[in-house]
Amino acid sequence: MARREETEQEAGVSPPAPRPTPVIGVGMVGYAFMGAAHSQGWRTAGHVFDLPVRPALAAICGRDRTAVEAAAARHGWAAAETDWRALIARDDVDLVDICTPGDSHAEIAVAALEAGKHVLCEKPLANTVAEAEAMAAAAERAAARGQVAIAGFNYRKVPALTYARSLIAEGRLGALRHVRATYLQDWLVDPLSPLTWRLKREHAGSGALGDLGAHIVDLAQYLAGEPLVGVSAVSETFVRQRPVLAGPATGLSGASDGAARGAVTVDDAVLFTGRLASGALASFEATRMAAGRKNALRLEINGQLGSIAFDLERLNELSFHDHTEPATSAGFRRILVTEPEHPYLEAWWPPGHGLGYEHTFVHQARDVVRTISEGRAPVPSFADGLQVQRVLAAVEESAAKNSVHTPVPF
Amino acid sequence: MARREETEQEAGVSPPAPRPTPVIGVGMVGYAFMGAAHSQGWRTAGHVFDLPVRPALAAICGRDRTAVEAAAARHGWAAAETDWRALIARDDVDLVDICTPGDSHAEIAVAALEAGKHVLCEKPLANTVAEAEAMAAAAERAAARGQVAIAGFNYRKVPALTYARSLIAEGRLGALRHVRATYLQDWLVDPLSPLTWRLKREHAGSGALGDLGAHIVDLAQYLAGEPLVGVSAVSETFVRQRPVLAGPATGLSGASDGAARGAVTVDDAVLFTGRLASGALASFEATRMAAGRKNALRLEINGQLGSIAFDLERLNELSFHDHTEPATSAGFRRILVTEPEHPYLEAWWPPGHGLGYEHTFVHQARDVVRTISEGRAPVPSFADGLQVQRVLAAVEESAAKNSVHTPVPF
Amino acid sequence: MARREETEQEAGVSPPAPRPTPVIGVGMVGYAFMGAAHSQGWRTAGHVFDLPVRPALAAICGRDRTAVEAAAARHGWAAAETDWRALIARDDVDLVDICTPGDSHAEIAVAALEAGKHVLCEKPLANTVAEAEAMAAAAERAAARGQVAIAGFNYRKVPALTYARSLIAEGRLGALRHVRATYLQDWLVDPLSPLTWRLKREHAGSGALGDLGAHIVDLAQYLAGEPLVGVSAVSETFVRQRPVLAGPATGLSGASDGAARGAVTVDDAVLFTGRLASGALASFEATRMAAGRKNALRLEINGQLGSIAFDLERLNELSFHDHTEPATSAGFRRILVTEPEHPYLEAWWPPGHGLGYEHTFVHQARDVVRTISEGRAPVPSFADGLQVQRVLAAVEESAAKNSVHTPVPF
Amino acid sequence: MARREETEQEAGVSPPAPRPTPVIGVGMVGYAFMGAAHSQGWRTAGHVFDLPVRPALAAICGRDRTAVEAAAARHGWAAAETDWRALIARDDVDLVDICTPGDSHAEIAVAALEAGKHVLCEKPLANTVAEAEAMAAAAERAAARGQVAIAGFNYRKVPALTYARSLIAEGRLGALRHVRATYLQDWLVDPLSPLTWRLKREHAGSGALGDLGAHIVDLAQYLAGEPLVGVSAVSETFVRQRPVLAGPATGLSGASDGAARGAVTVDDAVLFTGRLASGALASFEATRMAAGRKNALRLEINGQLGSIAFDLERLNELSFHDHTEPATSAGFRRILVTEPEHPYLEAWWPPGHGLGYEHTFVHQARDVVRTISEGRAPVPSFADGLQVQRVLAAVEESAAKNSVHTPVPF
Repeated sequence: MARREETEQEAGVSPPAPRPTPVIGVGMVGYAFMGAAHSQGWRTAGHVFDLPVRPALAAICGRDRTAVEAAAARHGWAAAETDWRALIARDDVDLVDICTPGDSHAEIAVAALEAGKHVLCEKPLANTVAEAEAMAAAAERAAARGQVAIAGFNYRKVPALTYARSLIAEGRLGALRHVRATYLQDWLVDPLSPLTWRLKREHAGSGALGDLGAHIVDLAQYLAGEPLVGVSAVSETFVRQRPVLAGPATGLSGASDGAARGAVTVDDAVLFTGRLASGALASFEATRMAAGRKNALRLEINGQLGSIAFDLERLNELSFHDHTEPATSAGFRRILVTEPEHPYLEAWWPPGHGLGYEHTFVHQARDVVRTISEGRAPVPSFADGLQVQRVLAAVEESAAKNSVHTPVPF
Repeated sequence: MARREETEQEAGVSPPAPRPTPVIGVGMVGYAFMGAAHSQGWRTAGHVFDLPVRPALAAICGRDRTAVEAAAARHGWAAAETDWRALIARDDVDLVDICTPGDSHAEIAVAALEAGKHVLCEKPLANTVAEAEAMAAAAERAAARGQVAIAGFNYRKVPALTYARSLIAEGRLGALRHVRATYLQDWLVDPLSPLTWRLKREHAGSGALGDLGAHIVDLAQYLAGEPLVGVSAVSETFVRQRPVLAGPATGLSGASDGAARGAVTVDDAVLFTGRLASGALASFEATRMAAGRKNALRLEINGQLGSIAFDLERLNELSFHDHTEPATSAGFRRILVTEPEHPYLEAWWPPGHGLGYEHTFVHQARDVVRTISEGRAPVPSFADGLQVQRVLAAVEESAAKNSVHTPVPF
Repeated sequence: MARREETEQEAGVSPPAPRPTPVIGVGMVGYAFMGAAHSQGWRTAGHVFDLPVRPALAAICGRDRTAVEAAAARHGWAAAETDWRALIARDDVDLVDICTPGDSHAEIAVAALEAGKHVLCEKPLANTVAEAEAMAAAAERAAARGQVAIAGFNYRKVPALTYARSLIAEGRLGALRHVRATYLQDWLVDPLSPLTWRLKREHAGSGALGDLGAHIVDLAQYLAGEPLVGVSAVSETFVRQRPVLAGPATGLSGASDGAARGAVTVDDAVLFTGRLASGALASFEATRMAAGRKNALRLEINGQLGSIAFDLERLNELSFHDHTEPATSAGFRRILVTEPEHPYLEAWWPPGHGLGYEHTFVHQARDVVRTISEGRAPVPSFADGLQVQRVLAAVEESAAKNSVHTPVPF
Repeated sequence: MARREETEQEAGVSPPAPRPTPVIGVGMVGYAFMGAAHSQGWRTAGHVFDLPVRPALAAICGRDRTAVEAAAARHGWAAAETDWRALIARDDVDLVDICTPGDSHAEIAVAALEAGKHVLCEKPLANTVAEAEAMAAAAERAAARGQVAIAGFNYRKVPALTYARSLIAEGRLGALRHVRATYLQDWLVDPLSPLTWRLKREHAGSGALGDLGAHIVDLAQYLAGEPLVGVSAVSETFVRQRPVLAGPATGLSGASDGAARGAVTVDDAVLFTGRLASGALASFEATRMAAGRKNALRLEINGQLGSIAFDLERLNELSFHDHTEPATSAGFRRILVTEPEHPYLEAWWPPGHGLGYEHTFVHQARDVVRTISEGRAPVPSFADGLQVQRVLAAVEESAAKNSVHTPVPF
């Protein structure tokens, strides 16, 4: 091999097409787990889907210059900033993608919208209803100026779930009776797992509720096509003291038994029941203490004419039961949601050649770009994100009030 | 073939063993679904297990003489009675097995115990806490006389669940964090499914709650080895009017769209959350409106050291996750609970040659006989059945009081 | 409890029905695993199904008087014999049920048929094609006298497989392309597992081939509705010496590392491919060396219009794929074959309350009795059993001849 | 949004890192399905893994200029060529990645190696043993010059399979007894599916055998760590005439019932049994006629101490049975191969956030780059690819010779 030394600038991904292509410059705030996942989405979408506008990874932002420059190099961003206000101010940034912890969402999102930028904001939209209300209001004002603000509920972009929504919207399940959703993980089972920012209320807002519960609340309402109108909840923090990390609380390892302890100020687990607007019953559980369950976002919806079931650990599959068939030949069928006619699959691989977790971010990037370029209404909107926040708040209120049924305002 | 005419008396199952074998005479009240299942249990147990005493199917009781005599002939009972008091009074009846709807449990059970008979009573123990208290008191008085009173929670006798209990009792799951249990059926999805006794409060006490919920409450407490201390509930009757059956309300068919309607006075579905004595969280759902789910009694228990999962539709299997293993090789393992060392399996088939639903009644018969002949304490006792009844009552109270957390008295 | 001493005669299962019921007296030869399973079948069938004639467990036969009398008492047989000729000669025996190792099938079956008895014979029909031919000839002669001879391929009586056959017969799979069948067990994985009769050619005829392969050959042909016309095979004995049992070679335990060794003279595993008459391709594997597989009889059949799949370890389920559906909503559906409209299910439990292994013998008893009393042609006949034997012989021939494709004579 | 018009050149993925990074220039021949998949691999590997050298997508080659330029733009290649000799001759191409049909592999690969380039060649290595031998010889000569030649058996890069190999290499399965592998697809079930290049012997070499069978032969040998020494095979072409495509035979659609027919000259399905060097038995099936199976590459390996099982349709999971555990608690465990300690997972998402099909190509790109930059021996080598080709040839020979067992030369 004639290995050449070359700057990465020269090695850029640069097809020779002479005709200029419109681009949309993305500026991303945050570069941890979500930052890496969003980078994959922005970098890949234009190479897979026919997009009217191609996303350009303009700049990434983080507080630590060394770290953010390394992240830029690793993930393929053209520039690095250490101040999110500077990121927003950049001319080459049309869209601000917010991947920070929830406590900074509102400030960044509102500023970006007011600066005329489109915004994609990770879920949960904010840590409080008040913040989310401010964000939704800013989004509404920005919409009048043609800007788009989208909440990053990426699991709506799992093809199996997008397809499930279409089955329900077509009436294949009939009147809904039951929604049950769990999101089970196990990374806090070990009592020595350290006290990261996700375990502090001031940063994370809540624990399993905001991290995992927000996903299943959004999905349940998205799939059902109707909101929760009230909830009854119980929550628990099983391990109330955890080892404090020596360095900055950004990793998941490094603690030892002898480390100093600090208080966990969020929930380890939350369970709640509820009613949808149509009268269907719903149940939810979010926990990070379910030994052996790694990413078990499981959904089942039963209607008068059929049912669907889903498990994120097998995300290429949807189970569907058609109750209108003769009982002798009816049963939950395992649909591999990998046919070219399935949502998002027009651009991917042959049937059975499954996708993975990260592709939700590729699909999200596709949808954000199309929403912007086609001038469509954003889905899920900040208003949708605010409504989820109201459900989360009602859950916390109910849990604090002896589980009493608590209406979700609308 | 030389087909001979012969009375069934002559064709009886009669081994030539000269040495007399002690027998225990069983008298059963009720001969519908549960009666058929219990008959299989009594008839089979002595042919499979080494029992110190052999059950004899002495007499069966039902109100309709023609029907009960047909049932006796069909199921192998030596005599038929139309009055349960007469059944109890029979000299050849040592044990009264109560398979009637819940509204008659208390009267029959107390009378049988006072007449000096052992009693096995189907679940739920009664329709009200007051009835269950009277039964538990009668059982306590009878215990002093050496009589046994057992509640028929047959699912404790599924080998996979008996084995799961032993894993938990041995500490393989460590401190428990979560119990989740659903019991999903779908035979009421059709709004034209008729108004049987199971849909009338005066006979059934409650709907899915007592029919299905009683099972999962008992199992959750049995497996965890500790009681529920409080619950928060929501329930619903989705279809409030159903066709009245022309004949006696004992079957499941026969209704038509033009039939007269009557009010359903029990719940179609109930959801509740709760806390166990140790602080573990629990969630429950019982419904007969989950299209496509036929008998989906599903349990999962997560502890600090491991988890178990079970589905009654695959009753020969237990899933077990050992969280003390290295993460790289850990995972839920599917144990076929058909090894000779597994509970009840010493008497059955080679590994992998699975059992069915009815064998829970064979195992129950085995355990009842052994409990009586060995003078052991009855498990599950009427006191256990009463405690389940108190949970059910707390569930109903919570559902009536806006889901507020409601303690379970003890 | 007033525990009474009573002979078992008096405790017999004897309903009081005054009208005499026709019975068919069964005499069974053999009382090990198969004997116990058949006993359950004979004892239960009349209590579950509406039968025109009720089977009576007249007599059981084994060489060891003490053991056979114990078996009679345990399994509910009215008499015990130590000579199968005496059993055949009994007036109260109308049907001889042969549950012995394969080396005695032919002699007993032919004698019983010539004595005017009906015969049910466990699979494989015999140890050699010559024996099976003699049996089929005897059966044909007996058929002319109104006698029935049936081969005991009990897995045809698994409701899911009976139902699968009906789907295929109705054309739901279209032209067949592929049949693949495995029967995997693991009880010979341990090289110290002892040298039982099943490992000696003189008693068992062959190893995994006759024990397990016979089942999947019969099922493949039954389900496809057409015969195998040729095979290509390879077989292996991985463990060629095993510990000799001290006592009679009837159990599975008792060997130790220091025990004397004897030669295994049958195959541990056999694989073969083949062609059905229609041109469909087939593959088979039978082994007792597949660690972790307990009773994994797995079948899949693919046709131009659909596919079915089955696993005996989950015997209440059939997977069915309807290829005529739109690709977006198609997939293998898990049918719980427990609906009242499913084969054999008219008499059993509500949907989802599954059956077990032993019920195949209850269903077989039902079918044998009905075939006899209704004068129908026996299915599977001895001719069917002979044809399976010819496939097994062709497999052995091919394995001995370097796997060369070997036609199955017909 | 301030949407700017910009050439894609300007929008390149260009981090600002001042320090030059060594790159390896990739030139790819072919741009259909495999080309798209490989592009994802090359484009992504450097953004996910820590690589000593970063792959640069230098040039892509195809015969149709318009199409190849569109592909370059779509997939992110810096230049496009229409002559593969020109591609090889480019200074910025260090590695030639061959994604064409099998009939051109040998010519391109040998030329590239002789031109001093590294080569990655899609499987099967060639259409004939002679071609593969020429390639392996060229690879050996090139290795002496420090060049690398790798065969593209990408499924070795599925983390679950890489991990399975490590379990077997560590002896966790003990002496191997059985390997069974199927690769089932269904895209040829429809007799109107058109006559693409994959159905013509002159382009594809063989049908399901080379397309699917090559994968499972390679995987079986890779996992077992030993070669097949002989095979016995049967193959079939069920649909012998298919509609000819009007345009170039590169797509999968466009045929109609009235179209002209042409002969299918490859197999639709092939089955074969075999023996590994250790004496373990193996069975294989490759078909594109298994209705409902989309990408069912299923593997099971049984050894004396344990077993593994895998299904490509659930590629994040490995089933593992540890036969050294007590039978009561043993069972196939479902390992989610998504832990950071699992192969390739150090760089991906948290546990349970699964990968997809395309990531095998990312992993392949990582391994190719590391092999080159670290001067390691290539795995799988062209010699490995040749050995697979010899197995395929033995399969075809056996199928042509009445399935007779045919040794695989080595």
